[in-house]
Amino acid sequence: MGVLSEGLTQILIPVAAFIGLGFALFQWFLVSKVKVSGGYGDYSGYKDRLINEGETEEGVDPLEVSIKCAEIQNAISVGATSFLFTEYRYLGIFTAVFGIVIFLFLGSVKGFSTESEPCTYNTGNICKPALANALFTTIAFFLGALTSVLSGFLGMKIATYANARTTLEARKGVGKAFITAFRSGAVMGFLLAANGLLVLWVSINLFKLYYGDDWEGLYESITGYGLGGSSMALFGRVGGGIYTKAADVGADLVGKVERNIPEDDPRNPAVIADNVGDNVGDIAGMGSDLFGSYAESSCAALFVASISSFGISHDFTAMSYPLIVSSMGIVVCLITTLFATDLFEIKRVSEIEPTLKRQLVISTVLMTAGIAMVTFFALPSEFTLFNFGTEMSVKNWHLFFCVAIGLWAGLAIGYTTEYYTSSAYSPVKDVADSCRTGAATNVIFGLALGYKSVIIPIFAIAIAIYVSFSLAAMYGISVSALGMLSTIATGLAIDAYGPISDNAGGIAEMAGMSHEIRERTDALDAAGNTTAAIGKGFAIGSAALVSLALFGAFVSRAGINTVDVLTPKVFIGLLVGAMLPYWFSAMTMKSVGSAALKMVEEVRRQFNTIPGLMEGRAKPDYATCVKISTDASLREMIPPGALVMLTPLIAGTFFGVETLAGVLAGSLVSGVQVAISASNTGGAWDNAKKYIEAGGNEHAKSLGPKGSDAHKAAVIGDTIGDPLKDTSGPSLNILIKLMAVESLVFAPFFAAHGGLLFKLF
Amino acid sequence: MGVLSEGLTQILIPVAAFIGLGFALFQWFLVSKVKVSGGYGDYSGYKDRLINEGETEEGVDPLEVSIKCAEIQNAISVGATSFLFTEYRYLGIFTAVFGIVIFLFLGSVKGFSTESEPCTYNTGNICKPALANALFTTIAFFLGALTSVLSGFLGMKIATYANARTTLEARKGVGKAFITAFRSGAVMGFLLAANGLLVLWVSINLFKLYYGDDWEGLYESITGYGLGGSSMALFGRVGGGIYTKAADVGADLVGKVERNIPEDDPRNPAVIADNVGDNVGDIAGMGSDLFGSYAESSCAALFVASISSFGISHDFTAMSYPLIVSSMGIVVCLITTLFATDLFEIKRVSEIEPTLKRQLVISTVLMTAGIAMVTFFALPSEFTLFNFGTEMSVKNWHLFFCVAIGLWAGLAIGYTTEYYTSSAYSPVKDVADSCRTGAATNVIFGLALGYKSVIIPIFAIAIAIYVSFSLAAMYGISVSALGMLSTIATGLAIDAYGPISDNAGGIAEMAGMSHEIRERTDALDAAGNTTAAIGKGFAIGSAALVSLALFGAFVSRAGINTVDVLTPKVFIGLLVGAMLPYWFSAMTMKSVGSAALKMVEEVRRQFNTIPGLMEGRAKPDYATCVKISTDASLREMIPPGALVMLTPLIAGTFFGVETLAGVLAGSLVSGVQVAISASNTGGAWDNAKKYIEAGGNEHAKSLGPKGSDAHKAAVIGDTIGDPLKDTSGPSLNILIKLMAVESLVFAPFFAAHGGLLFKLF
Repeated sequence: MGVLSEGLTQILIPVAAFIGLGFALFQWFLVSKVKVSGGYGDYSGYKDRLINEGETEEGVDPLEVSIKCAEIQNAISVGATSFLFTEYRYLGIFTAVFGIVIFLFLGSVKGFSTESEPCTYNTGNICKPALANALFTTIAFFLGALTSVLSGFLGMKIATYANARTTLEARKGVGKAFITAFRSGAVMGFLLAANGLLVLWVSINLFKLYYGDDWEGLYESITGYGLGGSSMALFGRVGGGIYTKAADVGADLVGKVERNIPEDDPRNPAVIADNVGDNVGDIAGMGSDLFGSYAESSCAALFVASISSFGISHDFTAMSYPLIVSSMGIVVCLITTLFATDLFEIKRVSEIEPTLKRQLVISTVLMTAGIAMVTFFALPSEFTLFNFGTEMSVKNWHLFFCVAIGLWAGLAIGYTTEYYTSSAYSPVKDVADSCRTGAATNVIFGLALGYKSVIIPIFAIAIAIYVSFSLAAMYGISVSALGMLSTIATGLAIDAYGPISDNAGGIAEMAGMSHEIRERTDALDAAGNTTAAIGKGFAIGSAALVSLALFGAFVSRAGINTVDVLTPKVFIGLLVGAMLPYWFSAMTMKSVGSAALKMVEEVRRQFNTIPGLMEGRAKPDYATCVKISTDASLREMIPPGALVMLTPLIAGTFFGVETLAGVLAGSLVSGVQVAISASNTGGAWDNAKKYIEAGGNEHAKSLGPKGSDAHKAAVIGDTIGDPLKDTSGPSLNILIKLMAVESLVFAPFFAAHGGLLFKLF
Repeated sequence: MGVLSEGLTQILIPVAAFIGLGFALFQWFLVSKVKVSGGYGDYSGYKDRLINEGETEEGVDPLEVSIKCAEIQNAISVGATSFLFTEYRYLGIFTAVFGIVIFLFLGSVKGFSTESEPCTYNTGNICKPALANALFTTIAFFLGALTSVLSGFLGMKIATYANARTTLEARKGVGKAFITAFRSGAVMGFLLAANGLLVLWVSINLFKLYYGDDWEGLYESITGYGLGGSSMALFGRVGGGIYTKAADVGADLVGKVERNIPEDDPRNPAVIADNVGDNVGDIAGMGSDLFGSYAESSCAALFVASISSFGISHDFTAMSYPLIVSSMGIVVCLITTLFATDLFEIKRVSEIEPTLKRQLVISTVLMTAGIAMVTFFALPSEFTLFNFGTEMSVKNWHLFFCVAIGLWAGLAIGYTTEYYTSSAYSPVKDVADSCRTGAATNVIFGLALGYKSVIIPIFAIAIAIYVSFSLAAMYGISVSALGMLSTIATGLAIDAYGPISDNAGGIAEMAGMSHEIRERTDALDAAGNTTAAIGKGFAIGSAALVSLALFGAFVSRAGINTVDVLTPKVFIGLLVGAMLPYWFSAMTMKSVGSAALKMVEEVRRQFNTIPGLMEGRAKPDYATCVKISTDASLREMIPPGALVMLTPLIAGTFFGVETLAGVLAGSLVSGVQVAISASNTGGAWDNAKKYIEAGGNEHAKSLGPKGSDAHKAAVIGDTIGDPLKDTSGPSLNILIKLMAVESLVFAPFFAAHGGLLFKLF
């Protein structure tokens, strides 16, 4: 046994969760001090800690601007809330139906018998009936779905609350705006991390009331939590992604390309839909996604632990190691946040990116120490882990390396992503330079950049996998994933910072703020593109590890001990699995394209038929554009969602667990590449465009200004990148995770009744 | 034993090869009847079998045009020959060095001992020393390299010989031009198929003089033939691909986009380089590529057979089954060719594509009967095959199904490719339609189309793999690949037809022929884009099967019996392997992009500094553009080539055979997807552009004409597609095949000395 007693563990975990929640609320309180409606005069608060003190805006009435900002913020917030509620109605139906499916499939494993069974791993003992597992899995599924939806919704709320505040603060300088945006991101990060941990801890303790000593059944049922989280995330990402990019692409194609008006110009009828989209796609979708990763890696680790010596010997503290790591993560991220908000000040635009990057390093270094502490206190010095039918002996410092390598692999991925998507380095500059010869070379260079950017992340993931797999089998992989996600609060903070800044820029433009303000928000936004790409890098890196851990847990639970590529069943699974990301991307890209075409037609129609719109004398009809995005996203999220949800069910039921294992491995190794290259290509194009627009150096000036041929070519690249980086790319994380967790949940069913087709022939 | 005696087999194979060679020469003779330099009056020959009889060209002096065509043809032919010879000098050095590497690595397996060893599979017998295998493998490698180079070179020769002839025939109608182009393609197809078969047969018989009864060693050494073929193909594809697309992209970007002059306009300085490129890239590269597939699948099948009952019981006829299938293929394709050239006539443009498609169906149907015949005559009714350490019992009709399913999967892939890349169907029309809203939507739709187009081919390949794997293990896979390639002569004929027509169009434009002629050659070319895509579909489909067969042979030879995804060594191999196609594509795309930028600068420079060039009074400096393409392709083919050649050596030597097996499986399942989607996306963009240009229906007219905004957007898509479909896409076939065959050849070395890194730690 480790040093930490069960009682202390049961106290420390919820305490950490409540600290996280409290900190999130405190940050929210600080953000709320920026008054939106009351005008500039009302502004008060922590001014002594902010920079550019006396600077005020010239020539624009502060009160009027403030009121306008409040109006726009309100429109965005109402739009986003209304869309999410509509989406949740659909998801509610889905969740109910799929919950029944889970119950029926799992219940049928032992023919709905209510009799207790001998345990599978904890031999000699009696476990609860399969029917109970079916019921509790279904409950866990609902809880996961609810928590996921809540994570996305709360994130959206704080983001729409913060965007106008960031704009207003930008009048006082880039430093203040940065802090507002960053604090708001932190609210989301901490809410999500703490909430996920708390719900999981409560669920385990409640389930324990029924399960008692049957930890196999308990932690099997808990896997439903991961499935619930990820299935909501899928629809959130896909639906939100289609929503935001249909609006964005449509707005840009007519506004920027045809009408030559700036981005986020209030005359553009699609502008509100575009800004709503940032919040429902990038914020709510990302929140659900990362929550899903977190829930799944915890579930995978818990499941593997439950069938290892921790579970067999009922060592609750060791068993809760994944939760303790996450608890430590909350504390570490809290300290890290203070560096950005209180210990350092941003004075220049050029400091934004380094500050955000520094956050990653600080949290990683601190967390490494944190992991060491947790590992030595919570774990016995030696124990055995389940390893596909055999047992392996593991020391506690082995697990330290597993968690730490995941953490540092995340940092490596983050830094690589930054290198390939920030205009501070040569890759994006090369892409910008290729705009000289037009859109075609821009696209060729951008695609090549995306392809190239997968190399280092893949090696980082491969090393993390090799080390943790070798040291602690599948348990090692799952805690490695948890390590990468342990700094999720910081990761989400710098990630959410991106869309908030993007929105802030939009509000500045729409409220008619001065050129100077817009430049500041643009700078915040450019850094935000990079951090968004970094966030996506983390999401995909952790998804790869999580999926592998889930895959391992699935294989263990399905009772197979090898997945041999040299068998036809596995190989065809591998091949078809590797194809799924393409099929999925084809659907989502086409959806965005078609919805954008409709948006273009509507925007054109409004410009042509509403007199005085171009001159700013008439108001466009924002609502119709919102409706186009809403309808498209709700309709179009179903086919890709069905592809992901049905594939494991079909493969498992008709072709059996070996083929399904092949499918999971194939989609994992192929999907990671597609996702990383799509995100980075898109991020690079966006920043290449911003690089030309900003004209920050001689090279950039020679390509610009806005409206030059090179800039037009850059806009085309940016538009193509939109669905790649915000719709298909990030959804692929969920594709690979969700198929894996779904397979894990349904594993007993497939093992009992699967492979119908091969049984027939 | 089967019905066919060894003596008869030894006669029938070379006879089939000579029939193929004879038929190729006869077709060449028919093509040569079209006189290029002597003017229209000299024309004579098989006019009674041609259509559009009396039609002559109006207003243009036939003699003058003919002379001009001869000049241009000469320039293209000289350029292509000179490039290939330069390239071959580099390849010569590479071949010599790599030959030494092979000898040293394989010789070191038993410490360069000259003593005979006990056989591995044919237990109880004595086999030749490992040093002899090293020597003969090296010789086979040289032979394969030489045959590959010869295949590419001869293909290029006939293509450059035929292009002007096709142009001149186009004056007499689309039917005559079609037949000339198709016959020329057939020359290449038959030369290549017959040549490959003959050299392999001669090599086996010569090697047998030394090896005698040691068939294990004999067929192990023969695998060098496949390695030689594919390594030349790699450089041919990559070098040729960079050459042609640098020129093409560069020419289009300045000519079509900036200067608004037509494609292939003689005023464009890059136009000769562009046309040379078609011949060195699409023709010579494709020839080497498909020859490589053919050689490798034969080698894989022969190797597996040699360690099965065929080899153990020394049944030469059954052993030669792969060669007999290929012999039958030559005969079947000969009959098939007559359908296109003699039995049917093309009267309208709309008949071109159906005719080419019909060729595929005819050859497939006939070949199915041919396979049945061959299988029942050549094979004993029951025998055993080696299956990763165990033996499986197989009946001869099992093998019939293996070959036939490969053949039909090829047809399915061909038809799917046609559906996605021909403007006759909705996918390309949708892409064309998306040009209405600009280049960005065009690119989004095009990428989505490419992603979607992988679905059916992957299922076709998966079914072929499952059936043949289940029926006859790895031998089944390799003969399934041979089945897909058995109609290679027809496949290559319709494939080579594409670039020949493309060149014919270029010559028509440059020679100043009338609009009507250009329309005919454009129609030929549009069909050619589709057939080129079909050819690439075959190439990638067969590459997938071949690689899997080679992979199986490698695993057998390396002495491992499972490749378990659930081991860290294998999994990281899988993940990194799946990344390689992206790394490789990043290199080749970037190379094309950079070379195209240089080309653009040079073309712009010439337009700006040569007085009278735009007005047609001065001649451009073609040679400088040719030099840019040549230098770029020779310099830039080295890094991707090194990546492919070194990866198996590094993975095998340092990480061992399990990791290498993972790398091969990963690159196979991921590369297939990237390759198919890249080819089809590119083909679709090209044809969407041609669809708008041709204006064949109301929809197309509403998008056009040339120079409209939609057309400009289509041109951008086409340009982006160029490197995708002609450089990175098709090179990926070779990446996956070559790594597999190289692993197979070096397997004894890796098994003996590999995995250094894991041994150290």
